[in-house]
Amino acid sequence: MGVIVQKFGGTSVANAEKIKRAAQRAIDTAEKGNQVVVVASARGKQTDTLIADALELNPNPPKREMDQLLSTGEQQTVSLLAMAIDGMGYKAISMTGAQIKMITDSVHTKARIKSIDAKAIKKHLDAGNIVIVAGFQGIDENENITTLGRGGSDTSAVALAAAVKADACEIYTDVDGIYTTDPRIFPEAVKMDQISYDEMLEMASLGAGVMHGRSIEFGKKYDVTIHVRSSMSDKKGTLITHEVPQMEGILVSGATIEKNLAKISMTGVDNHPGNAAKIFAHLAQAKVSVNDIIQTEVSSEKANVSFTVSKSDFNDAKKAVEGIKETVNCDEIFCRDDIAEVSVVGVGMRTHYGVANMMFTALANAKVNIDSITTSEIRISCIVDKDQGDLALKSVCKTFELDKPVEKRSYVK
Amino acid sequence: MGVIVQKFGGTSVANAEKIKRAAQRAIDTAEKGNQVVVVASARGKQTDTLIADALELNPNPPKREMDQLLSTGEQQTVSLLAMAIDGMGYKAISMTGAQIKMITDSVHTKARIKSIDAKAIKKHLDAGNIVIVAGFQGIDENENITTLGRGGSDTSAVALAAAVKADACEIYTDVDGIYTTDPRIFPEAVKMDQISYDEMLEMASLGAGVMHGRSIEFGKKYDVTIHVRSSMSDKKGTLITHEVPQMEGILVSGATIEKNLAKISMTGVDNHPGNAAKIFAHLAQAKVSVNDIIQTEVSSEKANVSFTVSKSDFNDAKKAVEGIKETVNCDEIFCRDDIAEVSVVGVGMRTHYGVANMMFTALANAKVNIDSITTSEIRISCIVDKDQGDLALKSVCKTFELDKPVEKRSYVK
Repeated sequence: MGVIVQKFGGTSVANAEKIKRAAQRAIDTAEKGNQVVVVASARGKQTDTLIADALELNPNPPKREMDQLLSTGEQQTVSLLAMAIDGMGYKAISMTGAQIKMITDSVHTKARIKSIDAKAIKKHLDAGNIVIVAGFQGIDENENITTLGRGGSDTSAVALAAAVKADACEIYTDVDGIYTTDPRIFPEAVKMDQISYDEMLEMASLGAGVMHGRSIEFGKKYDVTIHVRSSMSDKKGTLITHEVPQMEGILVSGATIEKNLAKISMTGVDNHPGNAAKIFAHLAQAKVSVNDIIQTEVSSEKANVSFTVSKSDFNDAKKAVEGIKETVNCDEIFCRDDIAEVSVVGVGMRTHYGVANMMFTALANAKVNIDSITTSEIRISCIVDKDQGDLALKSVCKTFELDKPVEKRSYVK
Repeated sequence: MGVIVQKFGGTSVANAEKIKRAAQRAIDTAEKGNQVVVVASARGKQTDTLIADALELNPNPPKREMDQLLSTGEQQTVSLLAMAIDGMGYKAISMTGAQIKMITDSVHTKARIKSIDAKAIKKHLDAGNIVIVAGFQGIDENENITTLGRGGSDTSAVALAAAVKADACEIYTDVDGIYTTDPRIFPEAVKMDQISYDEMLEMASLGAGVMHGRSIEFGKKYDVTIHVRSSMSDKKGTLITHEVPQMEGILVSGATIEKNLAKISMTGVDNHPGNAAKIFAHLAQAKVSVNDIIQTEVSSEKANVSFTVSKSDFNDAKKAVEGIKETVNCDEIFCRDDIAEVSVVGVGMRTHYGVANMMFTALANAKVNIDSITTSEIRISCIVDKDQGDLALKSVCKTFELDKPVEKRSYVK
């Protein structure tokens, strides 16, 4: 008995059969005595079709109008879901972002949620309805329709769960949870039972899909436990939740590999205060988004500055550093895009020594050369040659026993 | 210089090319110094597709959800139109029914407009925008999305024209105006330059398409001249307007034929007060919509009662009259669906004698037998055998010279 938010992504509502399955799940949950709020995305490829329609008319469409257009995708899904539920004999009502007063800022195509009025939803729940809310969309103070950007429906679901004080926020997807690593590379990867918000945030920023960072931040901020699970089964998935003491013993929760990277190194840069700032201000001006930065002093006067960017920014980044080379008196610029970044993530690193050593040993055993290393409080990342990337990931996964459930790992007490 | 409302129907925005053509027309109108409000319908077959999606999930979908679903069609068109106009270098903004506060009652799928807040539209017009409004849709007092039913976008356009005090309301369509009769039957039919609201209302109710009755009622009530014209040319179309004195001389503005009719006659009904009421209350209960009613006294005790219904209601109507037959002591029931109703419409009938005689003579000359006759103040209708229907219409059109412009007709002074 409680309030349950269930979010169904585009693949889970792609056709009539899948819509009926989602409807049935909501009804089953309601018939157990729960109040159910469903959040839904646009059906399958609807959004892509609409974007194509838009670009045919205007290669650079105004963002406000894109939001006005794309929000129709979710509106269609929620009304169809409500019809399906009604057809199965249960009461349902669909609501747009405007109708639930999901107020956002006015940054079209990537708006941020400011407030939700839970009153309308509560009223409909109390009247015995399953309430179906259009994900991904809101309105600004002037009633312009806004959308929340990538992963927006997840964010809607988590924000709604916070607003209605839900007992659970279930994210239905086509995988059955979050895996210790990418099973396409390391097929022995296992599903995690739980992961902390911070770990999930690190993994999301390292390119491990499933959940977008912003929805996880929301969950952390408003204390919403997120249950990522399969729309095809009733099996328990992965809980994204606050850190609990036993997580610390795990050392490493997951491992990731990011291949879509390039690295630029500037050697012999004058080691003056403000030179690093000059370089990265120049890159920002060129609209290059920088990932990790590594600076090392090579003498009292000189430093090497390296950074990684996504491949799509590589050409812009190369041009930009050429333009700042003389200003910072840089000797040489080295560029490479044949790299991969292998990372391990775990809150256990905060309190346990030796995780870095275990990782470097794993790479050494696999004869993988490490180009460079960066770390955060709960993450260690190594840049390696791209053609050694998969090998590196597998060796790291073996070392941290990411092919075993947590309780069976030899290093977990 | 003024405020112009331009409405584009589904066929006029069916694809990117047509959307661009509509966009160009709006820009051309704006560049002549006008403020332009565009009202648009859903693209081509979008609405049909959405209805099919709905019926696949629920053969009897809740009407509120149908409105929530179908309103997305217009929302897509208006955002795409705004993008197209923006791409052509002109400022545009799209608005949903909710955003312009088109308040309706709560009768989903056939709501009636209660009020429009012209302020938002005016603000955007004054800021130099072409304002693109989603037709067919509104919201009720509780922010549920409603739709206006058949011809709803025309009604939206006329209502908006009234609200913004427009100087013109242009309805773009795939024909170049309203014809004196159906050119598929009488190819010599000519386009009318103008027609009064009352005449157009009669013709619409007689099945002459182009404009739906409700939009004409709105135009009449709020004194909006409606200009029905082609989206493919710049030629003047037909003005639907208040009656002007010279219209009276025309006698007959147009002629129609309705073949989708059936007729039921009850003979020898007891001529008691209240018996007609009993019959038609019974039909109403059976949800049969009755067109014309003819009652004739055959003796001081007995009357014959006939009425026409659309063919789709014929079976229900037959069943219903069987159920009331004994109550009203009816002798016999005759049913036929091999009929056609040929009508002439014109405000000139109010002040000129002999129009009925001209019509009956036309039918007699063509050797068409008249089954029955009904009239209104500005209309004469004859029911004839269906296989004589086209012949009857042609003869009537010839008699009233509906193949000639008004000023060339021999009987027009």
